[in-house]
Order: sequence, then structure tokens, then C-alpha cells
Amino acid sequence: MAIQISDRMRDMTPSAIREILKTNTPISFSAGNPSPETFPAKELGLLAAEIFEKEFATALQYGLTEGYGPLRELTKSRMRDKYGIGGEDDELIIVSGGAQGIDLAAKCLLNEGDVVICENPSYVGALLDYRSHRARLVGVDMDAHGMDMEALARVLQVEKRAKVIYTIPTFQNPMGVTMPLERRKRLVELAVKYDVMILEDSPYFELRYEGAPVPCVKSLDTTGHVLFSGSFSKVVAPGLRTGYVCGPKALISKMVVAKQGQDVHTNLLSMMLIARFLERYDLDAHIARCCALYREKRDRMLKNLETHVDARVSFTRPEGGLFLWGQLPEGFTGTEFSRAAADRGVAVVPGMAFDVAENPENRGFRVNFSLPALEQIDAGTVILGETFARLANSRD
Amino acid sequence: MAIQISDRMRDMTPSAIREILKTNTPISFSAGNPSPETFPAKELGLLAAEIFEKEFATALQYGLTEGYGPLRELTKSRMRDKYGIGGEDDELIIVSGGAQGIDLAAKCLLNEGDVVICENPSYVGALLDYRSHRARLVGVDMDAHGMDMEALARVLQVEKRAKVIYTIPTFQNPMGVTMPLERRKRLVELAVKYDVMILEDSPYFELRYEGAPVPCVKSLDTTGHVLFSGSFSKVVAPGLRTGYVCGPKALISKMVVAKQGQDVHTNLLSMMLIARFLERYDLDAHIARCCALYREKRDRMLKNLETHVDARVSFTRPEGGLFLWGQLPEGFTGTEFSRAAADRGVAVVPGMAFDVAENPENRGFRVNFSLPALEQIDAGTVILGETFARLANSRD
Repeated sequence: MAIQISDRMRDMTPSAIREILKTNTPISFSAGNPSPETFPAKELGLLAAEIFEKEFATALQYGLTEGYGPLRELTKSRMRDKYGIGGEDDELIIVSGGAQGIDLAAKCLLNEGDVVICENPSYVGALLDYRSHRARLVGVDMDAHGMDMEALARVLQVEKRAKVIYTIPTFQNPMGVTMPLERRKRLVELAVKYDVMILEDSPYFELRYEGAPVPCVKSLDTTGHVLFSGSFSKVVAPGLRTGYVCGPKALISKMVVAKQGQDVHTNLLSMMLIARFLERYDLDAHIARCCALYREKRDRMLKNLETHVDARVSFTRPEGGLFLWGQLPEGFTGTEFSRAAADRGVAVVPGMAFDVAENPENRGFRVNFSLPALEQIDAGTVILGETFARLANSRD
Repeated sequence: MAIQISDRMRDMTPSAIREILKTNTPISFSAGNPSPETFPAKELGLLAAEIFEKEFATALQYGLTEGYGPLRELTKSRMRDKYGIGGEDDELIIVSGGAQGIDLAAKCLLNEGDVVICENPSYVGALLDYRSHRARLVGVDMDAHGMDMEALARVLQVEKRAKVIYTIPTFQNPMGVTMPLERRKRLVELAVKYDVMILEDSPYFELRYEGAPVPCVKSLDTTGHVLFSGSFSKVVAPGLRTGYVCGPKALISKMVVAKQGQDVHTNLLSMMLIARFLERYDLDAHIARCCALYREKRDRMLKNLETHVDARVSFTRPEGGLFLWGQLPEGFTGTEFSRAAADRGVAVVPGMAFDVAENPENRGFRVNFSLPALEQIDAGTVILGETFARLANSRD
């Protein structure tokens, strides 16, 4: 049979990053993975033993689509009390990782041809998903403080079918930059003015290594224009595939219906493990330990890149998260640089993968510093420096 | 903000069954749940302890979208060697429960307005999902041997936009009936003739309590017209949300792309638990123990229904699976019967929930026998008998 693929999926290709993850380079700066050193494996192991002994009939059975009750309640109060997220008209449900929150929101909000405004560059998984819903992506340029609000205002003025503004305001993926409070206020103002939903995708916001926290966009929302997508992937463990979304009840209730058809409910064992972890241990202290580790890695990465790489290549200086962004000078592309680096045994992700227009001329590349060990950061940055020097020499 | 829900989700309402599960009746015959007595909790607990000790860095990290390698290989060989499922041109991936397999296939195969032909009645989760993809559902009537093939042939002749034939050929949900081999052959013949994909949804097929096994439809496929959807939910545990799909490579590779956007990958801890369970324990022996338990429950349910319920109500006699189907005489609806039974403390699911046309006059109701204890089966069937007698009296 010659399989007839649907219009929406016919031209879809796998995420460049996940394909890169399948290739083996000795040193990888290409993943979006937390460091396994941060996984609370011992604690989760003890909790698992207890669950399998005393609560297996719940953990192994079907559950409610909205998520395991105690985890919903714990997450709800944590987000409300600590971050001002979730008001009277909001609801919070558990989803199978942050990606599912984005996908369910897309399914419930977008018709074919609707416009999603996003940062350019942005998280490739979300871009891929929006394309699969046949939305039209309109990118807004970024600077060192995130999405340019004047550019956003201009886009909103002309794009009458804009339905969603997709943003990663804190420690953005891939650039690592953070939107300051004033810009966040302006963002909400614009969303209200044009009556467009903001999807605040914030899987990294609790991983801050320096500077003062900036309020979440959702905490500024008084009119139900913001959906917050959070995740336990970066602060507990990604393999557990557990995230949450908090937003207007009318939207969340439809997302629950969509989730019923997609996976019925999130993995119960994982939801119970995380609930018990929140009850018995101190997540904030755990996050502080993660931050100490990542701060050291980030510092080493930044210092090494400055030392080893030609000053014509510029790097963002993230205050948190997992990534920083390198920008090559004119005449170079992230794609050729990434290929050359991979040939020398170091993987970074070419900016093209995150580019809304998939522009092969994109001069950026994403560097992850959470996963590699310090020695790998040392060795890999030397190679990145050599790689650029070779490329530059070949141009002269 | 007045949330604008997308066209595809605007009129979607939660599954009647999952809503019923939220209401508490003392005796529930309404779930689709396996019995917790069948969960291999002790074995999984031991395996979990080992994984958290020795392999936590894999179990808690991101993994590949296609699934955990060892589980894919184990499932592939088991399905091929034991059931003749999966040829040279097929691929098998792990998904987050059977529902996700159905949803991903829908996303990759269906354009808006395409036709999905299904058994009537059928699994409400799949119907809900197909509706959310804006497919048009065309139901084909069933008899005691499943889908009527002559009716199917007539539908295929007129429905030029038919893309998928959705079938649960073995111990069908909700009716409990099984399609014999001759009909399966005819089904494949028709799919080939009209070049339509068959989705064989078979989460129950290994739970057989009497009679000879019938080959899976997929095992009769030589032309790549069948996608098989399987699940560990009913033979290991549903809370682990782990299933698999096996079908033509060209389709599966697109489903992988769709899955990337949906949940990146299936829960790794669960995939590893099931892989280790398959390696260290005897799944077939475990299934045989499940069957012994369910056989007793089915026998008790059938015997009691015959004893306590008016002979004008007929019941299917399933050779396996979790459900049987009651059919009320003319003048009664499954909806009024289910309501009256719930008022007396017994939950069954009204046939309308599974009806392709959502016909409120549907005279059927689904009875689950896997979850209730024998004493509950005893007490509940008496109540079902009284409920019908009362309704019948009120008509006289």
C-alpha cells in the first residue's frame, strides 16, 4: 500500500536535535538534558519501594485525566504561594511533560491557518508541533532581553489571525536570555489589547544562577490571557515525563478532553513519585543544589568560550537555564560550524533548527552546559575554538 | 478573555465513561480497568529498586521518541514469533498507551472530512479522538461475530473518502465479541481492494478464557494495509501507560515525528520496568494467571445475569477481554436503564456512549467483569435484575 500521509504531516520531518542526539560525538553540547547528577535517584528509589508496597493498586491502575489529585494540589499551592500563578478563574492539570501542554493548547486554540507569534529563534519542538497543526508561524526578533516588544506590536497590528503568542520568557531556549519585568508587562498589555492568548513556556525558570528573579508573565495576568506551562523535567527528572499547565478554566477543560484522546492520563507512578517527593523532601533545597552544580558548569563554559574562541563569535550570558547561544560573524553559518565541530567530535545544534523560517544562513548555534562534565566543557570549548579558527582560515 | 476554542474542539465533551468514573456508586461495572489483583506489583517493585540503584541515569533522563531500545526489541520479537505480527516492511515503536497509537495514526492519516469506518458500537475514546480530528465516522453494524462484512463492503463502495477502518476484532469493546478468521480474511481483502488502512486495536487479545485463538488481522497482512495497536495496560498495568504500534515503516516514521511534538517519548521508567519484566519473568505465565482470575469472574457474571435478569434482556458471551454487552428489549433505552441502575448503586455504561451516532435510543449497555470482586458481581447482578423488573413494571 502506498501510504497517503495527511496534509498536516506530509512534509513534517524529525526534529533536527533529536536526530543529532542519535549520532554519537565524543562530546555533546547539543542535548537539552539536565545532568543525571541532579536526579534525586536515591529518594525516588525509596519512594518507589513504598509505593509498590503500599499503594500499588493506585499507582498501576487507570487514573483521572486531570492528573493525580495530591500532585495537582501540591503543584497548585506551590505555584500560587511561591510565584503568584493561578487565580480564581484558573485551573491546573498535570500533563505528560511540557511538550504535551503546548500540543494540547495548540489543538484547543488553533484552526488551520491561524497565526502563532513566537520568538525567533525558539524551541524547535514547539515550532514542529505548531507546524503539524498547520498554524502559520510568525517570528519576532530577540535581543539580549528577549522578544522585541515594538516588533511584536507591529506584528499584532497586521496579523489579524494571531491566536497565540508563544514565549519562553525566562532563560529562553535556545538563546538563554530573560525578558525583564517591564517587557513582560508590555507583553501582557499587548495580548489584552489584541485579545491574543500568551503561552508562557517556562521549564527552566527555577534554575537561576545569578541575578534577582523576575515575576512569571502569568503572575501579571488579571484577564485570563496567559496559559502557563511548567515541567518537572528540569527540576526532578525528564524521564518521568511530568509537567503541568495552569490557565483559564474554559481552556483547561477542553485540554482535558483532548488529553483523554491522546493518552488518557499521565503516568501514575511518576505522578505519585513526584507528589511524594514534594511531600517528604524539600524541592527548593533540591533546586538550590541543582543550581550550584549548573552555575559552576555555566561559569566554566562562559570562561572557556571567552578564552578559546575568537572574539568575533559572540555568546549570550544566561542567568540560568541550560543553554547559551553563539553567534558567528557574517559570512559563516551555524550549520557549517556545527558540521565542522561534529567532525572534530563536539556536537552543538545549528541555529537553523530553531529558526522560524528554517533559514540555512542562520549564524547561530546553541550550546548546552548542563549535561557535559567540567572536563568535557574544557576539552570541547578548545575544539570549538579550533573549529572556528579553521573555518576562518579557510575564508582568508 | 473570552477563550476562542478551535473548531475541532469547540463541541467536544468529555468521555461519558470517564465522567461516570468520577461519580461514586457502591458497585461499579462501568470501568475498563483490569483487576489490581493481576498487577505484578511485587515483581515491579523489585525491578524498580534495581533500576533506581543501577540504571537511574537512563531511567530518569530523556530518551528516544521511538521508545526504549530493549523494550522495542523484546516486543518486536514477541509479537513476530508468537503472533506473526510485523514483517520486513514494518516497524514497531513504543507509545504512551494504546490511545496514543490511535491518535498518532489519526494525525498522520486523516484530513478534515475524511471518513473513518468503525464498528458500531465502538471504543468511545477512539470515537472521541476521531471526532477531534474532524473525521466523519461511519458505523458498521455488528453481530455476535463482530463487524458485518457485507455491510462494510457496501460502505466502502460509497464512501470515497474512507481512509481508515477502525476495528477491535478480538473481545471487542464494548460488545465483547470476536471476529472469526473468515471475516478477518474478508476484512483484509476489502481493505486491499479499496486501498484503505485497517487499524487493528487489540488491547485485550491475549486475555482469552475459552475457545481457540484467532490469528490477528495484522498477521494476515501482506500488503501493508494493517496497523496493529497493542498495549501493556491489560496484561501488565495501565498506570504505566505503555503500548506499542506495529505497521508500515512509512506510516510509523511519521507517527514518530508526531509523537515528538506530543510527549517527546514514553515514560522511561515504565518502559524499563516492562522490559525487565519481560526479560526476568514469564509474561505468558502471568497472562495465564490473569485469565484464570477473569474466567471465574466472567463465568460468575454470565451465570448471575442469566439467573437474575429477565430473559428479554440478552447478553453477549465473550470468550475473553473485560466486557460483555447487554441488549434491552424494544421500548427501553440503555440510558434510562443505566440511570436507574446507578440510582440503586450499580454503574454500567449506557450504549449511547459507544454509539457512533450517539443515538439516545440505543438499547445497549456495557458491563465490565474484570474489576468487581465476586461478591460485588453477586450483589450487582441482583440489582440489575431488580432495576429492569421495576422499569418493565412501570411500563405495564
